[in-house]
Amino acid sequence: MISIRDINSSKIEKGLVSVQGWVRTHRQSKSVSFIELNDGSGVKGLQLVIEPTLESYAKVAVSISTGAAIKASGELVDSPAKGQKFEMKVTEITLVGQADPETYPLQKKGHSLEFLREILHLRPRSNTIGALWRVRSRAAMAVHKFYQERDFFYLHTPIVTTSDCEGAGEMFRVSTLDPRSPPLLENGQIDFSQDFFKEQAHLTVSGQLEAEIGAMALSKVYTFGPTFRAENSNTTRHLSEFWMIEPEVAFNELPENMQLAWDFVKYVVEDVIKQCGEELEFLHAREWCEKGLSEALHKLVTSNYAVLDYTEAVKILETSGKKFEFPVSWGIDLQTEHERFLTDEYIKGPVFVVNYPKQIKAFYMKLNEDEKTVRAMDLLVPRLGEIIGGSQREERHDVLLNRIKELGLPQAPYWWYLELRKFGTTPHAGFGLGFERLLMYITGMQNIRDVTPFPRFPGYAKF
Amino acid sequence: MISIRDINSSKIEKGLVSVQGWVRTHRQSKSVSFIELNDGSGVKGLQLVIEPTLESYAKVAVSISTGAAIKASGELVDSPAKGQKFEMKVTEITLVGQADPETYPLQKKGHSLEFLREILHLRPRSNTIGALWRVRSRAAMAVHKFYQERDFFYLHTPIVTTSDCEGAGEMFRVSTLDPRSPPLLENGQIDFSQDFFKEQAHLTVSGQLEAEIGAMALSKVYTFGPTFRAENSNTTRHLSEFWMIEPEVAFNELPENMQLAWDFVKYVVEDVIKQCGEELEFLHAREWCEKGLSEALHKLVTSNYAVLDYTEAVKILETSGKKFEFPVSWGIDLQTEHERFLTDEYIKGPVFVVNYPKQIKAFYMKLNEDEKTVRAMDLLVPRLGEIIGGSQREERHDVLLNRIKELGLPQAPYWWYLELRKFGTTPHAGFGLGFERLLMYITGMQNIRDVTPFPRFPGYAKF
Repeated sequence: MISIRDINSSKIEKGLVSVQGWVRTHRQSKSVSFIELNDGSGVKGLQLVIEPTLESYAKVAVSISTGAAIKASGELVDSPAKGQKFEMKVTEITLVGQADPETYPLQKKGHSLEFLREILHLRPRSNTIGALWRVRSRAAMAVHKFYQERDFFYLHTPIVTTSDCEGAGEMFRVSTLDPRSPPLLENGQIDFSQDFFKEQAHLTVSGQLEAEIGAMALSKVYTFGPTFRAENSNTTRHLSEFWMIEPEVAFNELPENMQLAWDFVKYVVEDVIKQCGEELEFLHAREWCEKGLSEALHKLVTSNYAVLDYTEAVKILETSGKKFEFPVSWGIDLQTEHERFLTDEYIKGPVFVVNYPKQIKAFYMKLNEDEKTVRAMDLLVPRLGEIIGGSQREERHDVLLNRIKELGLPQAPYWWYLELRKFGTTPHAGFGLGFERLLMYITGMQNIRDVTPFPRFPGYAKF
Repeated sequence: MISIRDINSSKIEKGLVSVQGWVRTHRQSKSVSFIELNDGSGVKGLQLVIEPTLESYAKVAVSISTGAAIKASGELVDSPAKGQKFEMKVTEITLVGQADPETYPLQKKGHSLEFLREILHLRPRSNTIGALWRVRSRAAMAVHKFYQERDFFYLHTPIVTTSDCEGAGEMFRVSTLDPRSPPLLENGQIDFSQDFFKEQAHLTVSGQLEAEIGAMALSKVYTFGPTFRAENSNTTRHLSEFWMIEPEVAFNELPENMQLAWDFVKYVVEDVIKQCGEELEFLHAREWCEKGLSEALHKLVTSNYAVLDYTEAVKILETSGKKFEFPVSWGIDLQTEHERFLTDEYIKGPVFVVNYPKQIKAFYMKLNEDEKTVRAMDLLVPRLGEIIGGSQREERHDVLLNRIKELGLPQAPYWWYLELRKFGTTPHAGFGLGFERLLMYITGMQNIRDVTPFPRFPGYAKF
């Protein structure tokens, strides 16, 4: 079966073809009828031109309205209309499924993104969400292509885990115990030994620690899977369930890690520009999209990365003459307003900030020789802030153990993580990229709930 | 940095190179030392040949044992040994991380798969599990390539869901309520309106219903993500967490669905043979692997599919002269012994069984005109039984609603699923393939816990 995208991208020769899809508009007049047909393969539809006397049409014309499914056969001919190469002179048309215009929620007029979020089962039929689903698919493939071309191995890290290691965020519990009367121990605590996994289990917040297992065996691995945060964050930049990509490479140190992250982001952006030009053109023209995004993306793919030492970044902020809501001094975690100054005003583009104070970063990051900072790297991009967080990992067993003790973390759960440092340890580094954040950056969407097909957030897990 | 796989596959010219990885064996003699180095990129390692007088070696030689991480530079030269093209004459060697031979669990001798399952953090360093991780990665990429080359869109269906639709299996609850004292309603039930998602939430058992949303908008979609079953199945073929691929295509009917499934399986098998020849050769030679698997896989990629109507399959079983433990008659669900007779003895290869009785299949499958059977299809393969289950879906609103009522299912949760049949409904079809089952089929592994990096099963979610 021929897709309308193939027709519009001239992969199909003129001549007789059959198409199928859903009606976007149906205009009837005495001399000729027009149907704009879309099959979801692209933004652009195919114009069907129909003689009202055509028998197969005449008997169903009254039932063909926006949203109806049809099949049509006919001849592709040059279109006199602007913006489309071909149109189809229909010789046979079949109505497959009606869509009652009285009740079908998606009519010709545009709908607000808020309204579309109420009808997740129908919204991918809209131009905007349809384009976003296609971009998401091609961007995901670009992720895999990037790593596989570089001989990384894709690793499925666990979703349900009893390993409560990273402290990256609040976690969801996973259980099959009867919630009304769970078995209790004598001390009144839940007896998790009777739960499905015989321990308290959670949804993962990150696959990094397990990815390190992979890097210490196969040298170069990456994950691409769902991760979860049970934080009560009702913002346009947070989801409770999101997809993350986490590469991890043995023998890499911070410079190689930064280069990998930069090459990766550039690759995905470039590939999406190439695969989804039609979608980006449409999305970047939406009223909510900032001006100049398309140029910024094109510039990005040919540019080198900018990097600021955290200490340097703090000086820049302190001497910027800007009034920040959160005062700046060495040791603070950078707030959105600080990040935006660095990306939007100072660098005017994406920037890595590296070597953060150890107290604001995770225990597993490699301690620098100053013993005050760690080899962390965050990639900040305009408008969104952090899209990548990564580091060189602490590969020295005793230094890592000290950090665990210093931070008052329990040692027992880290037994295997520590063993990776006992048996053939090597320098290694990796990072995590939030897939939805990258999609927001590329598409210009302002709400993360629109770039994921079925958003989950506090109070909402429908469909 | 050069990978040892590239050296062994002759992508690298002779000459000076640097490599890094982990020591498999270290043999010392007065005149020459040998290290077999493996970096996880392939089954085969690189033989390092070292003059014992080499200064950088002499000082660390005593600490180089199995599992130690090292870096080495030197010259690639033709190897006099059989089975390897090159070896390296080392000019410089660095010990990066030791592995105490007294405590490092992986020594030269082979280890049982049972033992390796105890040390998930180290087992990918073994030849068998390392090979399985690489096959898994390349097979996953083959999945994406297959669908993306055919212009399908990759869809991330939700992991956490309040939609309790399919009844495909027991579900895990996801919650942030205090398990010791959850809020209760007046009637003693849990007040889920105070839970994170304000409803009772679960881990998904299948992305199919949401994939249908995608197909009804973009025509051709596929999912590839984790799914969960809370069944107490402690078998070699079941996991509590596994990855599933679920394509769904608008306007497809059962024959197209079967062809897609067959092309898909063949594509992945063929691609893995091509990408992972070294791994398959190694795995198929293990003592647990059935004889002739390699030939069977090569035969599969050039063969057409076999198909049996369920009714026909039952007749074949009834007249087989075999004594089955579970008696055969029209209407029964096929048991493993029946499936194995059909694949291993009757067809001698994979076979689709289609048009099952409606009472043993899910509510959403399209009812045939006989009103007794549905357009279901299972792909059975030798040794494993079902690896694909699929169907044409019931696209007729009223017929679907009747089935829901007939089966006594609640209507309310299906409101959106029914609406897909109200607005522009079309015939459509899809299937689910359990990724781990396919990997078992390809690699000849006998226990599903070995083909997934971090297996989850009743009583176990460690790491």
